[in-house]
Amino acid sequence: MRKYALLLMLVIITCATTVYAAENKETCLTCHEKMTPGVVRVWSSSAHAEQGVLCGDCHGNEYGRDHGEGGKRIVVEAYICARCHSEAAKEHFIGKHGIGFRAGHACTRNLRPTPEIRAGCSDCHEKGSALPRQDAECARFLAQTPEMQRQGCLSCHKIEVRCDACHTSHDTDLAIVRDPAVCGTCHMGPDHPQYEMWKTSRHGVLFDLKGRGYSPDCMTCHMPEGTHNVSTGISMGLFGQKYPDEVRAAEREKMMEICNRCHSKSFATVNLDDGDAIQKQSRALVDEAASIIRGLEEEGLLMPSPAERPEHPLVGQKLELGPQMIYEDLSGVEAIFFRMKKYYYIITYKGVFHQNPDYAHWYGNAPLKLALSEIRSEAMKLREIKRLKDRLDNLSEIRLQGLSPSGNNEESLKMDIRILLEEHLKGDMSEDEYEMRRKELLDKLGL
Amino acid sequence: MRKYALLLMLVIITCATTVYAAENKETCLTCHEKMTPGVVRVWSSSAHAEQGVLCGDCHGNEYGRDHGEGGKRIVVEAYICARCHSEAAKEHFIGKHGIGFRAGHACTRNLRPTPEIRAGCSDCHEKGSALPRQDAECARFLAQTPEMQRQGCLSCHKIEVRCDACHTSHDTDLAIVRDPAVCGTCHMGPDHPQYEMWKTSRHGVLFDLKGRGYSPDCMTCHMPEGTHNVSTGISMGLFGQKYPDEVRAAEREKMMEICNRCHSKSFATVNLDDGDAIQKQSRALVDEAASIIRGLEEEGLLMPSPAERPEHPLVGQKLELGPQMIYEDLSGVEAIFFRMKKYYYIITYKGVFHQNPDYAHWYGNAPLKLALSEIRSEAMKLREIKRLKDRLDNLSEIRLQGLSPSGNNEESLKMDIRILLEEHLKGDMSEDEYEMRRKELLDKLGL
Amino acid sequence: MRKYALLLMLVIITCATTVYAAENKETCLTCHEKMTPGVVRVWSSSAHAEQGVLCGDCHGNEYGRDHGEGGKRIVVEAYICARCHSEAAKEHFIGKHGIGFRAGHACTRNLRPTPEIRAGCSDCHEKGSALPRQDAECARFLAQTPEMQRQGCLSCHKIEVRCDACHTSHDTDLAIVRDPAVCGTCHMGPDHPQYEMWKTSRHGVLFDLKGRGYSPDCMTCHMPEGTHNVSTGISMGLFGQKYPDEVRAAEREKMMEICNRCHSKSFATVNLDDGDAIQKQSRALVDEAASIIRGLEEEGLLMPSPAERPEHPLVGQKLELGPQMIYEDLSGVEAIFFRMKKYYYIITYKGVFHQNPDYAHWYGNAPLKLALSEIRSEAMKLREIKRLKDRLDNLSEIRLQGLSPSGNNEESLKMDIRILLEEHLKGDMSEDEYEMRRKELLDKLGL
Repeated sequence: MRKYALLLMLVIITCATTVYAAENKETCLTCHEKMTPGVVRVWSSSAHAEQGVLCGDCHGNEYGRDHGEGGKRIVVEAYICARCHSEAAKEHFIGKHGIGFRAGHACTRNLRPTPEIRAGCSDCHEKGSALPRQDAECARFLAQTPEMQRQGCLSCHKIEVRCDACHTSHDTDLAIVRDPAVCGTCHMGPDHPQYEMWKTSRHGVLFDLKGRGYSPDCMTCHMPEGTHNVSTGISMGLFGQKYPDEVRAAEREKMMEICNRCHSKSFATVNLDDGDAIQKQSRALVDEAASIIRGLEEEGLLMPSPAERPEHPLVGQKLELGPQMIYEDLSGVEAIFFRMKKYYYIITYKGVFHQNPDYAHWYGNAPLKLALSEIRSEAMKLREIKRLKDRLDNLSEIRLQGLSPSGNNEESLKMDIRILLEEHLKGDMSEDEYEMRRKELLDKLGL
Repeated sequence: MRKYALLLMLVIITCATTVYAAENKETCLTCHEKMTPGVVRVWSSSAHAEQGVLCGDCHGNEYGRDHGEGGKRIVVEAYICARCHSEAAKEHFIGKHGIGFRAGHACTRNLRPTPEIRAGCSDCHEKGSALPRQDAECARFLAQTPEMQRQGCLSCHKIEVRCDACHTSHDTDLAIVRDPAVCGTCHMGPDHPQYEMWKTSRHGVLFDLKGRGYSPDCMTCHMPEGTHNVSTGISMGLFGQKYPDEVRAAEREKMMEICNRCHSKSFATVNLDDGDAIQKQSRALVDEAASIIRGLEEEGLLMPSPAERPEHPLVGQKLELGPQMIYEDLSGVEAIFFRMKKYYYIITYKGVFHQNPDYAHWYGNAPLKLALSEIRSEAMKLREIKRLKDRLDNLSEIRLQGLSPSGNNEESLKMDIRILLEEHLKGDMSEDEYEMRRKELLDKLGL
Repeated sequence: MRKYALLLMLVIITCATTVYAAENKETCLTCHEKMTPGVVRVWSSSAHAEQGVLCGDCHGNEYGRDHGEGGKRIVVEAYICARCHSEAAKEHFIGKHGIGFRAGHACTRNLRPTPEIRAGCSDCHEKGSALPRQDAECARFLAQTPEMQRQGCLSCHKIEVRCDACHTSHDTDLAIVRDPAVCGTCHMGPDHPQYEMWKTSRHGVLFDLKGRGYSPDCMTCHMPEGTHNVSTGISMGLFGQKYPDEVRAAEREKMMEICNRCHSKSFATVNLDDGDAIQKQSRALVDEAASIIRGLEEEGLLMPSPAERPEHPLVGQKLELGPQMIYEDLSGVEAIFFRMKKYYYIITYKGVFHQNPDYAHWYGNAPLKLALSEIRSEAMKLREIKRLKDRLDNLSEIRLQGLSPSGNNEESLKMDIRILLEEHLKGDMSEDEYEMRRKELLDKLGL
């Protein structure tokens, strides 16, 4: 896999270099000192400026003075930066941040978790082609408007191919990119608040008070020795998926080595093992909830049922509770489940691994279990309503079977109207047919 | 309108100046150095102390040594401060922070959104009077206890007339009031977390790491050139209400000019346009939810119905889902709607405008859509329960019509008791009448 | 009580001192400079190192070079530290942080609130013994897995006996332990975000901008003059429980004295009184919700009912809404209630006392009242479903009573199958009996 990525990158780098060449510095700055002074100011005091890396070296020189608005002048960073920063790029593409590169400019979730499966051609290439894939297979992405895709998804999920997702554009100050707050611009929020967890943990507090190096920050554990492979030391998938035993053991060993700088092996082992156990325990609660919902679906109790909903972008009118679950057009219990799985489960075990008891317990474990209670309770209620409906259907059958056929006297006609209404309310009769037949009966009654 | 505010202010300033005069410094400090040493310490090192602005210059000198506790010594800041800081006060009263001034010391929400409508006399004045209005028309405010009004509402909604809402009392250090964290003391929390959005966005992170001026903070965009008109550059109402096209275009132009300091016009346009589009898309989801709830109300399915609730402070026993919606005494679906509209909708589009994908997407868009799913699902459930009730009513009519009238034998009396119970459960009979008639039947049965 | 704690401590200190003696410095550092270099680095620049306090002085010297992994080398800090820091330890044990000490290494919630009751022997000792209690009486703790107990509960609730819960291990830099962020590692999150409230209040913002001493931080109000008795100035229990009037008045006086350093007595009185009033008002809403839920339970409407749930760790299969309420295996309304009581109620009044209107109002008061609306609404819905069920039961009785007994003709057999189904759906008949009798009838029908 590593070899493969290296090869692919070499091809890219070679192609890219031929396209771009030296630029005429004056041409750009003349205008941009007025147009975008902030950019020029930042670049001017950067290591790039110092080393003579000019605008066109990255943006290309194929644009004249009149390149106008909206031209394709955006640097697709990873390709361009890699010409000089090849080692960092190499590491980036191997780790989780770079995975999406192999599935095109789309969500990292598109790829399946194990190293073995990752090696499949279609994970990286368009079918029957050496070109990298460009299509998204993320239902959650596909369910959004283009505007929300841009602002809500791709603002972070550009990491695969954009170095400036972490490294601020034009600035080369490493103090910026090494600061945990930069990681936090994506690794925050209800779905995975790793930044907040760390920041408010003892590790984060000590970092703030005593400075970098005193206690671990994001890089210490996830980019040790400055590697750009951010998967180093992580021993399970993004959602706690199991890694092959040997991969898992090797990565855990790397993490343990970092913990041991300050903590005894026995202390670190208890804490990391607790994280593993809590991930499994929490996952079991999520699985129980999923199985309740699947049960409700089989009994036809979801409101609306998948058949009554707009199509899911990938699976159509079917129930989807797996990685491709979306948050649109769900029934009430599924909405609870979504939060349970995507927010509380993740927070619970990541809270433990980031040594934050408040996240593990009060932002994670408690709402996770409350949500499970709510799903169980709601299932009971939906079944109770269904049971009433079944009894009513049955009782109405008993009743209606026993009734004499229609006559033309007033009592008999009134009874017919009621029977008609019952059939309509039961759903045995369309609105139109009901209205027509009711009108007939009312006419007979002279009303 | 601007002229009007100016005029009004001049009147106020003139009145105010005549009331206050020079004070005897020693009188105040003699006691307050012991009583409130913190205040004296802060004032002593302020620009006011340096320039000879003494206690009585703001607080007045009409109090002797024995002014006692609870005297009216609080500075109604805006009136007093404006005597020296007239330019700032002028700008303040024009912008959104000062709007409430024209509706008395109450919520800014009292005023209607468009500049045209704002010009109505009663928006600013007591009816038939030149006096500024002093009454609140904010249902949410009126629904609170006096304590919660003070601590929960007026702690922020004093901004209209109190300069120290931002400028800390007694301290004149501009580093305080310019810091975004001061804005954040009100612009935070689930209803409008602008501070948190900015703080954890790249803009905010760079501000923290590189200092003021490197990247935009609150003032850069909303108080450009230090203006106290905080509405500068904002092109829609507080809740996304549409501005007249020309107002909107002019304000957007101002904002664009700020973006362009670092970003190309095309880049900024995409981002601002996305914000506009996402505001409209999200609003449409809120509107859909409101229309579902109005439908439920028409069908009598809200539990409790508006008629069963305590009076809404402004509209009485009616459904209110608009700007005057309160969060008390709602039915379950309305409680979901309140969060949807007041929390998630606001967060979604303000998250985009503050360049924070996690807020736009995970704190905003996802819960917004989950809430809509929950409202739709709950509506289906309420309708299902209603349908069962209708069928039961109908079926019970069929059944009871067919039954023979009461007799005095045991079977017949038992049947009468059951029919009586059904009538009672249906709600056709009061508790008292039921008990009385049931007793009669039980007596006949000898039980 | 104070005398008691002192006595107990003296005993402990005496015992502890005999066990530990001087260590051979080289032995420890020789290995640990390689094994846990972070610890050695921190200790080396600590006041302990400077004063000649060596590893074994705290960790003991009974371990040789080969003490191996997993030995009992953890310092039970409070006992050890107290040998030198006796004054601080004394204060710690008197205040709320130290309370749990007298109930063993468990949750501080185990102890009842008033000083009088605290004096009972069994609050501190194992029954009939001078040994401190070691058992937990916290249902919420007992309901967790051992891993979550460790990571979610005891990570904070070690404060009772562990000085390093606040004072970072090995580091003696007081700038760390005095920083509010350290308090925040436990006093944060949805259950009691005191740190976040303060941090984003004007007090917290000014602390950040102007430094320690300008505005109050945690220690200013809760550890005045550096006392380790963190209950100083607090005038109600952890959940707003009433203190005896004289205790309450004395503590309030202490707090007032702190407020008066900067604020007038009248200003501070309004704010503190508002806090008291809002606590009571909010508590009344919680009580109303509890009483609704108790009503539902009496009517058998909770889904699941306590009788259908796993045992509560302390009260068995009973409804528990008090301090021992757990968040597992609840019905839907109870899950709402848990959040209402444990999250929103606490946030509302603590938000006022920490001068944060956004917490008091938008994180507290609004969700508190929304939750109450939801509980009321859900209660109506559960009662409506129950009413339908009662009517159906009654109507089915009416119907079935009137039917002729079984015959062997087709119509009559079909009717019998329906009656059988109704009995089954009503819950009058087990699944097995239903299947058997249904089969008999189908056999008769030849199906």
